[in-house]
Amino acid sequence: MAKQGNRYKVIVDLILRMIDKGTLRINDRLPSLRQISRQEHVSIATALQAYRWLEDEGIASPRASSGYYVVGITPRCEDHSCASLSGSGDSALRGDADRTTVQPIRPSGESLAFDPAAPSAGLLPRARLSRIIGSLIRRHPFLVTECYPGLGYSELRRQIARRSPEYGCRLSAQDIVITNGGMESVSLALRAVTSAGDAVAVESPCSFLTLHTLRQLALEPVEIPVGHDGICLDVLRDALDGRAVKAALFMTNCSIPTGYVMAEERKRALVAILEESGIPLIENDALGDLAHGERPRTASAFARHEGVLLCSSFTKTLGAGLRLGWIAPGRYINRIRDLKVASNYATTALVQHAAAEYLQGSAYDRHCRSLRRALKKQTRQLCDAVKRYFPDACRASEPAGGYSLWVELPRNVDTDEFRSLDGLSRVRALPGVLFTASSAGFRNCVQLHCREPWTPVSDSEMRHLGGRIRRLRASPRDRLACLSVP
Amino acid sequence: MAKQGNRYKVIVDLILRMIDKGTLRINDRLPSLRQISRQEHVSIATALQAYRWLEDEGIASPRASSGYYVVGITPRCEDHSCASLSGSGDSALRGDADRTTVQPIRPSGESLAFDPAAPSAGLLPRARLSRIIGSLIRRHPFLVTECYPGLGYSELRRQIARRSPEYGCRLSAQDIVITNGGMESVSLALRAVTSAGDAVAVESPCSFLTLHTLRQLALEPVEIPVGHDGICLDVLRDALDGRAVKAALFMTNCSIPTGYVMAEERKRALVAILEESGIPLIENDALGDLAHGERPRTASAFARHEGVLLCSSFTKTLGAGLRLGWIAPGRYINRIRDLKVASNYATTALVQHAAAEYLQGSAYDRHCRSLRRALKKQTRQLCDAVKRYFPDACRASEPAGGYSLWVELPRNVDTDEFRSLDGLSRVRALPGVLFTASSAGFRNCVQLHCREPWTPVSDSEMRHLGGRIRRLRASPRDRLACLSVP
Repeated sequence: MAKQGNRYKVIVDLILRMIDKGTLRINDRLPSLRQISRQEHVSIATALQAYRWLEDEGIASPRASSGYYVVGITPRCEDHSCASLSGSGDSALRGDADRTTVQPIRPSGESLAFDPAAPSAGLLPRARLSRIIGSLIRRHPFLVTECYPGLGYSELRRQIARRSPEYGCRLSAQDIVITNGGMESVSLALRAVTSAGDAVAVESPCSFLTLHTLRQLALEPVEIPVGHDGICLDVLRDALDGRAVKAALFMTNCSIPTGYVMAEERKRALVAILEESGIPLIENDALGDLAHGERPRTASAFARHEGVLLCSSFTKTLGAGLRLGWIAPGRYINRIRDLKVASNYATTALVQHAAAEYLQGSAYDRHCRSLRRALKKQTRQLCDAVKRYFPDACRASEPAGGYSLWVELPRNVDTDEFRSLDGLSRVRALPGVLFTASSAGFRNCVQLHCREPWTPVSDSEMRHLGGRIRRLRASPRDRLACLSVP
Repeated sequence: MAKQGNRYKVIVDLILRMIDKGTLRINDRLPSLRQISRQEHVSIATALQAYRWLEDEGIASPRASSGYYVVGITPRCEDHSCASLSGSGDSALRGDADRTTVQPIRPSGESLAFDPAAPSAGLLPRARLSRIIGSLIRRHPFLVTECYPGLGYSELRRQIARRSPEYGCRLSAQDIVITNGGMESVSLALRAVTSAGDAVAVESPCSFLTLHTLRQLALEPVEIPVGHDGICLDVLRDALDGRAVKAALFMTNCSIPTGYVMAEERKRALVAILEESGIPLIENDALGDLAHGERPRTASAFARHEGVLLCSSFTKTLGAGLRLGWIAPGRYINRIRDLKVASNYATTALVQHAAAEYLQGSAYDRHCRSLRRALKKQTRQLCDAVKRYFPDACRASEPAGGYSLWVELPRNVDTDEFRSLDGLSRVRALPGVLFTASSAGFRNCVQLHCREPWTPVSDSEMRHLGGRIRRLRASPRDRLACLSVP
């Protein structure tokens, strides 16, 4: 009897722990009596004894022919990531509360919770896309069960190919592999042309997600400095001479974080240098459609030997939730297709159909034009605010595309302390140390971008930021005192 | 003048080639005059001259304030992958015509177009899921623009954790990373615990997609034979003694292609052997919910040191189009999260929300029960047909789960010749050579599965197959004559 008594307590304890951890919440069904008795090696009677105990305590309650449910207890779940969808209004579903931010590991090994920049949702065609998705899934439920392994959905590939003359390329649908976003394009490209331990030339400063990806693939970044006109080709040439670089990974259009667009003759020279050395170029053109002026051609346009793996994405132009990108990998097409299958077999069918439908007309082109104008305006306002509020000694990049601005502050400012800047809502400031693999670099630099169209709040946040930078120039002891956000 | 004449021909030629390749089709818009003049370095007048030529030839036509469109020409596009979505009825959108099949590279280097088995769409809850998706996207357009990098959407992770006692595990939401399908789970797990060149123990015969993945990651399979009761533990023990195996990758439940479910005491022994050797177990439980009897526990249930990376998927239970899976990687959780971010940042938000909503009630459990019953029945009918129509010397596996059957035929039959079996519609037969990395193995074996519930057609296809196998036992010269499908 004592033994039997202990046994039901095991079940009670198991359920209570699931409630504590947030695994079971109000209105969730408990495991069936049959299930739990089998898995915990107790009799149905013992399981029932446990469930009745929970019932007596007001924790669980049976429902007609449907088993026991959790009732009347507030689980001790403290983290955001347990926000429930059930019974919530739109506010609980905003998504923000539930977003897990990326934690790029900094050179020190410490992790930071920053997510990458993107145009705000209000600038993207999400109403139109959600209508397309709703209509597609209603008409074609097969999109739940069918998929397109390998290259991906041909009509989407064709739509991308149709636009390829804009990038200076002449792709056909057979040259393209659909991916789950631009990060996958870059990641597959790196895996196709490098092995663990290889060195890869990247721009410097460099997107922290790119650095994160290199680290995960055990690749060593060789950081090539950039100027207003893009990658320093002389330094690149020297770097290639000096060591066994196996690939180059650059954003020649609207680079993150500096925003440069390389001129065509410089793109041509870049490709020539790499072709001469027999080094494949992974061109990340995810922001190419966001140039502030004309849609620039890609470096890929100047390749002669199909040695460029052109990567792109709809994350910045349609929406990050879709997870949709593509790669035109030139002569590496079979390797990329095989890697894609081995990585995740295929990309969600519904999302591919939705993008293909949206791209069929001229809506995408119109949307990109207005997005470009909006980003150009926002970025100019951001630049103006830097001039207005930051110390005179600051030097800002001159973005020709995208939404990101790179600012070099006076030498004695350490922007690493911007980690505590979560109080800003319209403007985002990320410390420069995130944009290099070297522990010493860019301590006095900051990436700025505005998430939303400019408002008086953006302006006052920039004024606040400028004031803080002035104070950060004071002694280290004084700095500590001024790290709180208003 | 001659030069100008040549120039417009360049544009004409470019457009005609885009039409020939299928990149431009009827009703597609040509690049704007401004675009094409800029990218081809010709004047607007020259571009217009080209477009007018195309208009005169009846190939293109201007539409009011919207540019030129392709009209009145039948493009010479011959491959299926160019099927258009525009203007098509449901039949053109079935998806089948447009599916790109995987091409696993066989030991000989030759490629085959086979796709992996899955329960037929009619057995999956796609009507319900498509309603959920339609309703979600209507209510929450933010799903287009928001995403959940790292672990994934917490409510979906919680729903998976809630069911984890069924697998014999006690997961919480924080132990789980959402992936783009089971293949991604396995691929991330392999990348977390191995490096290129490492040896990995797998079952033999082994799913050809698993072998494909190992090949892409430059991993060497160490093939451990299986019997009716699963992996031969003695052979495994010897293999671990003999060589530097870095990981083991097994399906202990409803294995593909043999369909065994390992008994609990054997799972416990398997885990103990691996823990003793300090070797992580990657457990592919993608078919665990498809056991013909009770939902079996996983090997992971018996792990003591968090050294099991439990991989699963909704591909076989909800639908392959969703691309949704998960992994509970034990002590490798941070590494898997970082690899996931580096691989593709996040999984499509809408699909995660849809699955979470479907999993909230008891519909998933009811669905799995009926799916299990249907697969059990189909598989039994398949087994019966093998007994009825195949030569007596054939030995079939005894599936305890899933939908796959493995049949060993008489020694002198070479099933590689089943490549030409595309004429079968209800029953699928894949040659045994696909299920091993060794060039000599399994030539006389075949994987059978039925895509759909059993019908008289399934029966007559099996009868035909049996007849063919009898004939294949004849002389090589005679075999050639009988390779046509009725």
